[in-house]
Amino acid sequence: MGRLMRRFWIPALLSEELPENDGAPVRVRLLGEDLVAYRNTTGAVGLVAENCPHRGASLFFGRNEEAGLRCVYHGWKFDTSGACVDMPNEPPESNFKHKVNVSAYPTRERGGAVWAYLGPKELEPELPDLEWSLVPDSHRYIGKNYQENNWAQAVEGGIDSSHSSFLHRWLDPEARAKVTQPWLKTAAAEGRFKAQDTSPRFMLKPTDFGLLIAALRTVPDHGFFWRMTPLYLPFYTTIPTHLEPGQPYAGHAWVPIDDEHCWTYTVTWHPERPLTNEEVEWWMWQKGVADNGPGYKPTRNKGNDYLIDREMQRTVTFTGITSSGTEDRAVQETMGPIYDRTKEHLGTSDTAIIGFRRLLLQLARALQEGKEPYAAFHGDAYRVRSASVMVGHNASYDEVVELARERLTVPA
Amino acid sequence: MGRLMRRFWIPALLSEELPENDGAPVRVRLLGEDLVAYRNTTGAVGLVAENCPHRGASLFFGRNEEAGLRCVYHGWKFDTSGACVDMPNEPPESNFKHKVNVSAYPTRERGGAVWAYLGPKELEPELPDLEWSLVPDSHRYIGKNYQENNWAQAVEGGIDSSHSSFLHRWLDPEARAKVTQPWLKTAAAEGRFKAQDTSPRFMLKPTDFGLLIAALRTVPDHGFFWRMTPLYLPFYTTIPTHLEPGQPYAGHAWVPIDDEHCWTYTVTWHPERPLTNEEVEWWMWQKGVADNGPGYKPTRNKGNDYLIDREMQRTVTFTGITSSGTEDRAVQETMGPIYDRTKEHLGTSDTAIIGFRRLLLQLARALQEGKEPYAAFHGDAYRVRSASVMVGHNASYDEVVELARERLTVPA
Amino acid sequence: MGRLMRRFWIPALLSEELPENDGAPVRVRLLGEDLVAYRNTTGAVGLVAENCPHRGASLFFGRNEEAGLRCVYHGWKFDTSGACVDMPNEPPESNFKHKVNVSAYPTRERGGAVWAYLGPKELEPELPDLEWSLVPDSHRYIGKNYQENNWAQAVEGGIDSSHSSFLHRWLDPEARAKVTQPWLKTAAAEGRFKAQDTSPRFMLKPTDFGLLIAALRTVPDHGFFWRMTPLYLPFYTTIPTHLEPGQPYAGHAWVPIDDEHCWTYTVTWHPERPLTNEEVEWWMWQKGVADNGPGYKPTRNKGNDYLIDREMQRTVTFTGITSSGTEDRAVQETMGPIYDRTKEHLGTSDTAIIGFRRLLLQLARALQEGKEPYAAFHGDAYRVRSASVMVGHNASYDEVVELARERLTVPA
Repeated sequence: MGRLMRRFWIPALLSEELPENDGAPVRVRLLGEDLVAYRNTTGAVGLVAENCPHRGASLFFGRNEEAGLRCVYHGWKFDTSGACVDMPNEPPESNFKHKVNVSAYPTRERGGAVWAYLGPKELEPELPDLEWSLVPDSHRYIGKNYQENNWAQAVEGGIDSSHSSFLHRWLDPEARAKVTQPWLKTAAAEGRFKAQDTSPRFMLKPTDFGLLIAALRTVPDHGFFWRMTPLYLPFYTTIPTHLEPGQPYAGHAWVPIDDEHCWTYTVTWHPERPLTNEEVEWWMWQKGVADNGPGYKPTRNKGNDYLIDREMQRTVTFTGITSSGTEDRAVQETMGPIYDRTKEHLGTSDTAIIGFRRLLLQLARALQEGKEPYAAFHGDAYRVRSASVMVGHNASYDEVVELARERLTVPA
Repeated sequence: MGRLMRRFWIPALLSEELPENDGAPVRVRLLGEDLVAYRNTTGAVGLVAENCPHRGASLFFGRNEEAGLRCVYHGWKFDTSGACVDMPNEPPESNFKHKVNVSAYPTRERGGAVWAYLGPKELEPELPDLEWSLVPDSHRYIGKNYQENNWAQAVEGGIDSSHSSFLHRWLDPEARAKVTQPWLKTAAAEGRFKAQDTSPRFMLKPTDFGLLIAALRTVPDHGFFWRMTPLYLPFYTTIPTHLEPGQPYAGHAWVPIDDEHCWTYTVTWHPERPLTNEEVEWWMWQKGVADNGPGYKPTRNKGNDYLIDREMQRTVTFTGITSSGTEDRAVQETMGPIYDRTKEHLGTSDTAIIGFRRLLLQLARALQEGKEPYAAFHGDAYRVRSASVMVGHNASYDEVVELARERLTVPA
Repeated sequence: MGRLMRRFWIPALLSEELPENDGAPVRVRLLGEDLVAYRNTTGAVGLVAENCPHRGASLFFGRNEEAGLRCVYHGWKFDTSGACVDMPNEPPESNFKHKVNVSAYPTRERGGAVWAYLGPKELEPELPDLEWSLVPDSHRYIGKNYQENNWAQAVEGGIDSSHSSFLHRWLDPEARAKVTQPWLKTAAAEGRFKAQDTSPRFMLKPTDFGLLIAALRTVPDHGFFWRMTPLYLPFYTTIPTHLEPGQPYAGHAWVPIDDEHCWTYTVTWHPERPLTNEEVEWWMWQKGVADNGPGYKPTRNKGNDYLIDREMQRTVTFTGITSSGTEDRAVQETMGPIYDRTKEHLGTSDTAIIGFRRLLLQLARALQEGKEPYAAFHGDAYRVRSASVMVGHNASYDEVVELARERLTVPA
């Protein structure tokens, strides 16, 4: 799995974490490696091993100056490619600096994130054309939360439409709109529909980008309620929130820090217009990003039982935990960092999870046999949206397929 | 040893921790297992594995409603027997819920505690008829402290009469009564006697309930001072505090949380009348229960050296640590969670400890050979009190035996 | 290495930690052993295993009285030799106390420190005649800091003259004198010289006391700038701060707490006169000792990134970290507790470090072959100072040797 993950460009940190050229370096732990990121004099982002190759002092304390990061211990300086460009404590005639470099990974910036590629140089893939990463900055907002469990355990929550009938239920769905944002009518309607059919049927379709997951609910007096979630490899989703067209989209990336921790990125965007402040505020509140303390660590966390309010649980929401992002973390983290899957009892509602695990195992095995993952080298495969649609009980199969195609496709 | 412990009903938590029907569930760690306890709609107490059998979300966050605990992740609901009584995210026609259950242990309530049995269903034992568990609520007070060491290490402190001449000594025994409670004359007298003979002789007698431990001190001008401590299997004691009849009794249970932590329950009771507020306050102060912060965790603890006061140690008490319960924890916890017994040097004063260890090993071995512990299946064997008596130097052997029998027996 | 370390007297704690006879015992962790130190009724210092040999209660809570330390659990009392001198819970006729003792190590007091010898009794060495340990108390000040890495990793920082051109550089050397102490002209001059030649050449000379390390810099318009650092076995240095004679000396000892922690002792002294308050304050500020919180633990530490100030790093000092002692800890601790040396890239500037490692390995091997380290048994070998000298570009070899000899020798 580690090797498979190193075939993709992945978000390493937010661009906002490196706000200025020659500013303070930041620590980045990614795929179990301790790294330091810095924005150099030209604005390029370097991503290097934390420990100086000389004697191991932390480059986090380094001087970020004149297009390089200089270790404070003996003044060795490295550029973003990892080359040692100055070694002032060795005699001027020494050739030693040409023999030394620091481990460095290539980076790109797009969509408010700094992307890194941690795989073999000769196999550098394409950046994924996720819609949110391509729209203008004004059309998008991106944030993140620290999460204390394995990344795949988090992805499994994201593709499990079944839980949204329960974990995120408001006891009185109308109350939700009132309590949070008066203009959020769609959420209330969706909540009602999810509560009316709590055992959706799942259909999975393997795709170029990963997996298209469709959950079907039957809603009396309305019709068939389809929620279609793309799972883009290796760890992205877009939430099917679009019952009424014209609203912002939202999605996630779950980036492995190491086997027992991940970053939950939340992004919201509108393909065609700038986001309003209300839209940004609502999504970041909803996903628990607004709840972060220093270091993007949520103030509602495992250590304080997510500040569960038992009275609220009795009378307002299913959990008594504020915000659906925090609800998701609560169930995912309290499984433990890596849950023992032999203790599970998976039902038909877990079809998407089973499909996701199979896909990962299949890709990992294929890679062992020398077969590279298609998605990594075809960024345009990611040009797919989610969809949330209601079709009449008497809609024909062809009508549904046509509607889905239309809603899922990102316009060129 | 783990198997032996699972032959007995053991206190799992205090009844007060589940104050109301359909109230908030609480976490219970017991014999190394992570469990959740809840009081359901009918008042019955459920005790189930913390992780939902579906995908492992913590049932601590569960909804306690309509005679069951419902997981907030996908709404699966379990009754106190562990049966899955609702599985709303599977299709109505599904039979899956009949194939799934959560690990659940039977519980009983008695004496202010919720008791649990964690052994094989077909071998369910009897509740122990400890006197405190049978008196009316008004006649008893029960509390507990979190303790950071192995349960047996704590029991060994409880049956070691020898240490009470030192660890709990007041430099001026008269001062004790003044500092704590003016009416506590007996304690002062006992303190004097213990200080006068600091090397008691021990006699052990194996019994139906466990072990009767007698410590004999010779007190000039008074006679023979006997302190008789019953050690009831697997981890209960009653303190021999009754030099003058008519006072409340007090005792302990040391319940294993896991190998390195235990709950120290302290209970005080009067067989014949309600306790006074003064009596309750004194015992809970004395045993450090009054000192608890949230989660029954003592504010005087290993991390802050039990707030030892060196000036007080020089002038008032042997330790400078406030309350004898805290003194006990101080010596037991600072051995480390499980002390390396090969480093010990046991003397004649450790006779009770040696006897206790032999008894446990013998019972564990017997169990391996298929022989069940007698006490577990004979609750009435526990109808024994402690005794603290002074007999004249010229008392006959028969007189002592008769006096002991009278004092040790719980009236029918 | 552990065996080699146990051939020397080593500083166990500061004398100030045991301010009074029969005062409170203190915990001391040394070479991976948990010990308790106490000053008895006669002023002698006992250093014994923390756990009582009876049942393992911590002797930290012991009663320090009448020339011995008495365990609070059962009153066993031990003298500074470790002998059990009272065992009041055993019968008077018992002979048990003569069979029991607590592990105890011999101690000496000198130079504001309590020294301990943790090796075989029959091989007791001599105390090292370090100059600071022999001057009157008024001529010396000694402090210490807790440091979270292996002791050798810290020593390596102390003998690495090369880093002082960078880690401790003031961007404007003149500013240093102004910011810290107006009278500190020499430091500013040294700073200028170190910045002018940043790649010193190293010469090592094995000696009776350990290693003499000379770093040579060429300074235009001034001449050759020599800094000579004695590394006294196993872990002491004196800093070459004496460009102008007549100032106080300063040095370090890095004493292993265990493999991953050490005490950094800092001492400053004047061979001929009492120190002024300004001198003491400056050195203790400079070395981060003034920054200590409770337990000699620095308030600027790994957990808070040493309170690095990025603006100060841009404009005032090379690191933005206050005080050179804290700068040293920052680079040494952030390598991790024991850095993986296979990841290093050592250059010519690391000659002293390479020589130190070779010396240690050579002595450890020699000890395995039964050859005791010379320095341990010859305290007078330590009568050596550091030197910091500037000689003209045309000085003869003989002149340099003569000057060095004069400056390095401690007058009899």
